Amino acid sequence: MYIPTYDDVLAAHERIKPHIRRTPVLRSHYLNELTGADLYFKCESLQEPGAFKVRGASNAVFGLDEAQAKAGVATHSSGNHASCLSYAAMLRGIPCNVVMPRTAPQAKKDTVRRYGGKITECEPSTSSREATFAQVQAATGGDFVHPYNDPRVISGQATCSKEMIEDLGELDAVIAPIGGGGMVSGCCLTLSNIAPNTLIYAAEPEQADDAYRSFKAGHIIADDAPETIADGLKVPLKDLTWHFVSSHVTDILTASEQEIVDAMKITWKQLRIVMEPSSAVPLATILKNRATFAGKRVGVIITGGNVDLDTLPWQKS
Amino acid sequence: MYIPTYDDVLAAHERIKPHIRRTPVLRSHYLNELTGADLYFKCESLQEPGAFKVRGASNAVFGLDEAQAKAGVATHSSGNHASCLSYAAMLRGIPCNVVMPRTAPQAKKDTVRRYGGKITECEPSTSSREATFAQVQAATGGDFVHPYNDPRVISGQATCSKEMIEDLGELDAVIAPIGGGGMVSGCCLTLSNIAPNTLIYAAEPEQADDAYRSFKAGHIIADDAPETIADGLKVPLKDLTWHFVSSHVTDILTASEQEIVDAMKITWKQLRIVMEPSSAVPLATILKNRATFAGKRVGVIITGGNVDLDTLPWQKS
Repeated sequence: MYIPTYDDVLAAHERIKPHIRRTPVLRSHYLNELTGADLYFKCESLQEPGAFKVRGASNAVFGLDEAQAKAGVATHSSGNHASCLSYAAMLRGIPCNVVMPRTAPQAKKDTVRRYGGKITECEPSTSSREATFAQVQAATGGDFVHPYNDPRVISGQATCSKEMIEDLGELDAVIAPIGGGGMVSGCCLTLSNIAPNTLIYAAEPEQADDAYRSFKAGHIIADDAPETIADGLKVPLKDLTWHFVSSHVTDILTASEQEIVDAMKITWKQLRIVMEPSSAVPLATILKNRATFAGKRVGVIITGGNVDLDTLPWQKS
Repeated sequence: MYIPTYDDVLAAHERIKPHIRRTPVLRSHYLNELTGADLYFKCESLQEPGAFKVRGASNAVFGLDEAQAKAGVATHSSGNHASCLSYAAMLRGIPCNVVMPRTAPQAKKDTVRRYGGKITECEPSTSSREATFAQVQAATGGDFVHPYNDPRVISGQATCSKEMIEDLGELDAVIAPIGGGGMVSGCCLTLSNIAPNTLIYAAEPEQADDAYRSFKAGHIIADDAPETIADGLKVPLKDLTWHFVSSHVTDILTASEQEIVDAMKITWKQLRIVMEPSSAVPLATILKNRATFAGKRVGVIITGGNVDLDTLPWQKS
């Protein structure tokens, strides 16, 4: 297992700068009053494909040598990683093969195809996904870019907190949602090197709290198919992300489904950004752990903005 | 009638820079493909109070001398100008009195009050509004800041296109929605001075096309209470904005209600910003006037993001 270093982050940032957006940081008097904290929202939802995952994906795609680039990249994902990898591959003009369950939402398949990604469908089970992916990789020779357990991906995600520190100076804390742990690992990698006094918090849905339980237990606990509105946060930690999370995270905080929906709606209203449920988990945990954050300068990472605009969660209830 | 000059814009920008956000510019491969143009979306919806009107309001508020500042400012408005003027007055710590019809949405009243504005309600008629406003102004001595027909306001709005040219270089065209004409006048003032080859388009709802008809007739035509989903665009041109619009605008283009809603939804989805219907009118007109914009670098001003998240227009139909 290769553990990326801060030199890898510096190289990643130089590599991907022409292909990603240096996302804006938004603030709100109202949300500051509500939480008692001084919040800096880093809007990765405003990346062109709508998620921070374009950072890691671009680092992998643009780091390939010419020979490997010809065969392109491959992954299995039904979420933002699939569309961001397709987007990065489109920018470089190389093939991208994605294995997706046939049950994945049509909108997500459409996005991958719009960016030129080629989808091979599998059954919605781990065994079918792995077998199908092995076939696709054998047939195409595409380089496997894992959604998070890949040093190139973590180095890419780490450029987000690097921009925050460059733009905002030192922060008392940074908080990001945790699913597989790619973004949080990137924060650990960057902040432990350039802002070692900044506390690192991870935020997770109560209904998919495997990282929380792993953190308390001291070893990886993986759940089978948790159910939460925060659909980007259902996947488990893996060895590389566990390395960073267990070494550098201060605490993992959780929020209920209703708290997530409430935080999502208030963010849409106050910051006027379209944000997916996963991205609302940090604010939800800040609101219920006021004493932890009050009086502090806190960076909050808004990880993505891909939602179905026809069915918003506060309208279903 | 004092007609502001570009020196006023330079002074305004220096004055308001500490109090406004230099808003980000977003782009989308998808929207570029759809329109054939190269679109640069200037997101004034990401100003803290959610609208470009914070520029003109801040210029008026921070330009007051100490004596006048003590008495504060006053206006009549049921929209973004009222909340932006309250916001700017709060930043300076001076009183802000707003006359609003008692029938104005509760959410808009709440926003004005959150920023410390004091509301005096009137009946929803011009005569009641004018009588009530005269009383409020006599009682408070507050300086009247008109929503758009005020040289300080136009100079402030003009800083938006100044930032665009500074950040993007010369553009082939800039397009903004037109209601009373404050933002479009600001574009005229700036672009005619620093980018005289940039064409200036205004976009208006078909159902509130008084500026379009004024432009074609060569004199101001004012409608009584037009009905459109683009609630920010119902007000008529006045002498100062007519001066700029009639002198510098290339053309005024219109869009139907359905075209506005469609453009609004596609922008939320592709740019992942919460944008009010008024702000969707420019993209709606670009989509139906493809030949006018194809192949051109076009700045599109997203004027505001204050909407009711519980009743989105594409869900009502």
